[in-house]
This record gives sequence, structure tokens and C-alpha cells, in this order.
Amino acid sequence: MARHNFLFFITILEVWTLIYLDNSSTTKVCKPSIDASVACMSQHFGNPSSLHKMGLDAENIVTEAKKTLAKALGCDASNILFTSGATESNNTAVLGGIAANWRNGERIVTSGQEHASVVEPLEHLRGQGYEIISVHPREDGHFSADDFIDAVDENTVMVCCMFVNNETGAILPVSQIIKGVRKKNKKTLIHIDAVQGFGKLPLKISTVDADFISMSGHKIYAPKGIGALYIKKGTKFKPLLFGGGQQLGQRVGTESVPLIAGFSAAVSMCMENMSRYTAHYAELYEYLKSKLLEIPDVSINSPDDGVKYILNLSVKGIRSEIMLHFLEQEEIYVSSGSACSKGARSHVLSSLGLSEQRIDTAIRISFCYETTQNDLDVFVARLKQGIDSLIKTK
Amino acid sequence: MARHNFLFFITILEVWTLIYLDNSSTTKVCKPSIDASVACMSQHFGNPSSLHKMGLDAENIVTEAKKTLAKALGCDASNILFTSGATESNNTAVLGGIAANWRNGERIVTSGQEHASVVEPLEHLRGQGYEIISVHPREDGHFSADDFIDAVDENTVMVCCMFVNNETGAILPVSQIIKGVRKKNKKTLIHIDAVQGFGKLPLKISTVDADFISMSGHKIYAPKGIGALYIKKGTKFKPLLFGGGQQLGQRVGTESVPLIAGFSAAVSMCMENMSRYTAHYAELYEYLKSKLLEIPDVSINSPDDGVKYILNLSVKGIRSEIMLHFLEQEEIYVSSGSACSKGARSHVLSSLGLSEQRIDTAIRISFCYETTQNDLDVFVARLKQGIDSLIKTK
Repeated sequence: MARHNFLFFITILEVWTLIYLDNSSTTKVCKPSIDASVACMSQHFGNPSSLHKMGLDAENIVTEAKKTLAKALGCDASNILFTSGATESNNTAVLGGIAANWRNGERIVTSGQEHASVVEPLEHLRGQGYEIISVHPREDGHFSADDFIDAVDENTVMVCCMFVNNETGAILPVSQIIKGVRKKNKKTLIHIDAVQGFGKLPLKISTVDADFISMSGHKIYAPKGIGALYIKKGTKFKPLLFGGGQQLGQRVGTESVPLIAGFSAAVSMCMENMSRYTAHYAELYEYLKSKLLEIPDVSINSPDDGVKYILNLSVKGIRSEIMLHFLEQEEIYVSSGSACSKGARSHVLSSLGLSEQRIDTAIRISFCYETTQNDLDVFVARLKQGIDSLIKTK
Repeated sequence: MARHNFLFFITILEVWTLIYLDNSSTTKVCKPSIDASVACMSQHFGNPSSLHKMGLDAENIVTEAKKTLAKALGCDASNILFTSGATESNNTAVLGGIAANWRNGERIVTSGQEHASVVEPLEHLRGQGYEIISVHPREDGHFSADDFIDAVDENTVMVCCMFVNNETGAILPVSQIIKGVRKKNKKTLIHIDAVQGFGKLPLKISTVDADFISMSGHKIYAPKGIGALYIKKGTKFKPLLFGGGQQLGQRVGTESVPLIAGFSAAVSMCMENMSRYTAHYAELYEYLKSKLLEIPDVSINSPDDGVKYILNLSVKGIRSEIMLHFLEQEEIYVSSGSACSKGARSHVLSSLGLSEQRIDTAIRISFCYETTQNDLDVFVARLKQGIDSLIKTK
């Protein structure tokens, strides 16, 4: 019994000492989300398709969760579809949107910074004969809405543009893009990948009137395996899966009630605390940036006007992976580029015109609501140690 | 504080008094599965694609889970793919299998009793010009492997046959079908939907050497939202989703580590206790059947040689939904046909040649490892009350 107590103590210590600064890859699930998920595993475990009360109980949980997401976006619950994650949401929007609207043209306009789950469906469509036009940032590193609008012609079936870039934290001008594209071609579908912005920045349909908006649970403290897709009323798309009729046939398969409830709880937490978390991130960001600017070998790759929970930096002369593994020895976790593209050189940083050396030495820091100034002090101290010892031993 | 205690007491009572006999629709998540899921939400919450230790930790959990499923099937971990559920598994096998092997023919042979997530992809393929041949049970209600083998010709690209029927518990002769089909046409792909059998009946690749086998988590005490697909080495298929490269590109999107860990824990529990649970189900089944046969208005629709955890019965003169709602008043939960096809007349019972009246009065009882003889006593007593009062008031 004494030994058990001792082991328990060690575990607790481990959890409390890690400094996790990789929240744009994935997050620790928040307590309200865990509690909601577990309640659906152990008590509200009916199948939403069952005719009895336990089925109805589960169906109500799904309905309430759709309302929670709808409230966050300022839309109707009928616009919300639950998916297995943002990859499925993005694939549904791009492939399902094109499959139902191919008559409207063969050109697709997109940013040169999209996530792989948008890029690869687009490449698949390129293989089928679609013309994919990539818009790149201008010299100052910013995207111009005009460049998207100019690229849209009468033959443009879709525009795909992310809301917040996952590697740099840049905010793309989606609202202006949508307004301009709608004026130029009413038939052009607009898809916004909002994975890195939803739940963290204000995002309302009244200003971002897209046809599709992709959202992810695990970037905002819900478990991995759940996502959502906003679909504008009247926008046609072909579902990816067949059978069972769930979610009005738009996304079939038994709904993951535990993860849907967990997603809803996490969204509620984020929406209720958005202004507080935003202020917290701004403080952390300015603090970290000021500390980093004191280090001669460090350059900041994130734009000044990006989100304040993602900071991308390069450390002269030390490859990302080397620094990442040096930091992890002290239980400090950061990302080298996007976690979704192991090993490949970042196409996002490339599109900013950064040198190969700067790209290969890039590290991404991303905060969560639990990140503290002390975490950043420990990180900066260790980063400096790394610069001293790793450059010396190179 | 006193009021809180009182409320807690009520909740506990509710949980303990419900009699859930709808386990083939979905199950209550078992404790090992909840614990494993929660540990991945709160501690092992890294993204398997991250390069750091927390990513590796998460990746190891996925790898170990694949080994657990592989051990259950007697195959290699590389044959296992995690999906968002059996609907995705079935869609991947049918649509992805055909998309990569369309050169091998235009005929698809299937049982007339498949789940909607197989039927509807097949109907989609029928719309594209494929010939779908449905094999039906013979007069004694049993499928003959010969009927499947006879229907296979040199132009047959796929055979789809479920392992255990979800409505009646009938066991289909998948092993004999596979042996015969392999002899007749080596190029014919074979897909087995094993959702209602995996984890409950022995199912080994050594005897069921299919190309694809679909599995579900939530039918065997794991949370909803996780499934798996066995893919034979060398069998080609086209993935349904693009982007990110996870699971070797065969099923992309961040893996739902919590649900994967929960699935693995549930499979371990099922495999370790299979013989004990099987004996338990056999006892319950014989007990329930003997009690039901004493009631003049009850007929059994399940075959004698089916699984012992599903019992389908009809109650003369009382429509399924009426009895279902009568039972639920006492917190007894059963299914009227399959939960996946709300309202529609069962195509499975129709294929057995049962009268419309018998189909419309069918109820499915399905056990879990926690079902007790006392549960069945309460159910039978209430069923009798229902027969007395509902027939009288008709």
C-alpha cells in the first residue's frame, strides 16, 4: 500500500512539471469536456437512432451540441454537421462541394498556405482536370483579399481559404474575400478552414458568410476524433459516406455522442471565456516576444497582426528537430512546423519567401488557456541553454 | 448540501434500475475502456504526428491498440486500420475496394441481409452500372455458401457478406463462402462486415481469410465513434479521405487516440472473457427462450443455431413500437428491428419470408456481459403485462 502511494505521487509530479507549448497541434482535454464525454459513455449511452427514451436522450445531446456550435457561429443548428474531425470536414467541403456543383466551372482558387487536408483533395481534383490557382502572400507577408477576388472568374467553382494559419498564426482576410467573391460570381462556393480560429477568435456568419466552415474539437480542448462542418442553407454537397440516414443523411454512421458532448462542453468553455483568454494570450505573447528579441540568434516569423496564441520563430544555426529534442529533455514541448507533415519543409514558411535556413530552424510555440508566464520563462531559459550548447557542439 | 446528497441518491437508483436489452444497437462503455480513454484525454494527449516524446507516446498507444486488434483476429498489426466507425469501415471496403479494382469486373454478390452501410454504397455502385446480385436465405431460413459461390462468375469483382446478422443473430457461413469464392475466382475481393460478431465469437483470419473485415467499437463496450478495418496484405483500395498522411495515408486525419485506446481496452476485455461471456449468453438465451415459449402469443424469429446474445421475437397483435414504449415506461429497453433504420420495415425479416404482421410486431433483445437472469424475469413479466393490457385496449 505504501508503494502504491509513492507511485501515485510520482505520476502527479510528472503531470505538473511538463510545459506543453504545442497547443496548435493538439490540446489537453479540459475537465468539462472529459466530464461530458464520460457521462455519455456511462449513463447517456443510448444510440441516437434508437426509438426508446435512451435513444431520445442521446439524440437530445446531439441536438443541444449542434445548438452550442450554432450559437458560437451565430447560425441555425440545422447548419451544423458533426464529422470525425477537421480532415473529414475539409474533405467533405472540397470533394463533396465540387461533386455536387461541378457544372459551375473548373477553376478553384486557394491560398498557398492551406492544411494538407485541403491541399490534397485539391491535388486530387487537379488530377481530374480542375485548374487550381494558388494565391500567395505579398512581399510584406500578408495576403490581399484582392488577389483572391482577381483570380475568381466566371468559371470558378470554389474558393478555399483558411481563417488562421496553423504555422504562423497569420489571420487571412476571409471576410473581405467572401464579400468580393460573392459580388464577382454568385455561383462560386466558398470554403473556410477555421480550425485554428474557431473558439479562439470571434467568427460569425454575419461577417463570414461562407458556404462551408470547418472546425475541429481537439484544437480547443475537446478529444481527438470529432469535428464539425458549417453548411450554408441551400448549399449543395455530396456526402462522403452512405448508409444509415443519421444527421439527415448528410453524415451517416452512429454519432459519437461522447465526443459530440465533449466538443460542445469545450466550445461552451471557450466562448464563455473568449475575452479573458484573448487578453491572457496577448499578455503572454508580448512577454515572450520581448524576451525572444533579447536573444541575438532568434528571428520571429509570425506577423505582428496575427493571433496571439501562435508564435513562430527561428534560431540561427540550429535545426528545428535538434532544438525540439533538446527542449523535450526538460519536458518542454514545441512544434517544428506543422505536426501534420512530419519531415517535409514547410510550404507555409516557403510561401513567405523565407530562406531555407530560416525555415529549417523554425519552431512554433502555441499557447493554451493554462499556459503561464512561468512556463515561458522556463522555455526561454532552456532555449538560451540550447543556443549556447548546441551551437558550440555543432 | 443535504439536497445534493439526495439528488445523487436518485441518480444512482436510476442507473441501477434500468434494464438495457438493446446491446446490439449500442452498449454502455465498460470501465477499462472509459479509463483508457480518459487517460488519453488528460495525460497521454499528444498528437501522434508530433515529433516530440508526447507525440511518440500517443503514437505508441495507437500502435499497441493495433496489436491488440491484430491479436484478436490472428493477423499482423499492419493489417489494421482505425476508422471513425463501422459505417466508414464498410464504405471504405466497398467503395474504396471497388475504386481500386474496377478492372476485375462489374458484378457484386451480397447477402440480402446486409446493414445499411453496405447496402447503400452498393446501391450507389448499382447507379454507376454495377450488377448487384442479392443472395437470399433458403426456405429453412439459412444461407447456403453454395448460393454465394454459384453467383460468382469471372466478372465478379466483390462479394460482401456479413458475419452475424444484427437483427436475428443468424451466423452466416463466411468461412465456406470465402473458400469457395477463392477457388472460383482469385480476383474477387471478399468483404465481411463482422460488426455483430467481432469480440463475441471466435473470428480468425486463418479460417476467415477475407480481403476486408469491418469492426465496430461501440457494439463491444467501447465508445461510439471508433471502428476498424482489417485489410489483407496486398489488397488494394482507395482511401476515402485525403491529407496529412496518418496511418500510412490509408486513413488520414489525426487519430482519435482516446477512442482508439478505449477500443483496445474493450477488445482486450472481450477476448480475455470470451468463453465466460459465451457461456453466460447461452444460459441467458435458453432461459429467456423457455420463458417466452410459455407465452402463447410469442413467436421466436431467431434461428436455433444463431448467436446466443441476440433473440428476435414477435408478439402477435402488438406492433413493435407500441410494445417498445410500453416496456420503456418501466426502464426496460429493447429494439424494434434495427436502430439504424427508424420506421422502415425490416428487409432482414422480409428476406426470411415472415408475414408482414410478424415483421411489424418484432422485437429484438440483445444481451451484454452484465445482463442478468433477473433482468430477463423483469422483462418477461412486463412483456406479459403488455400482452394483457395492450391487446385488451386495442
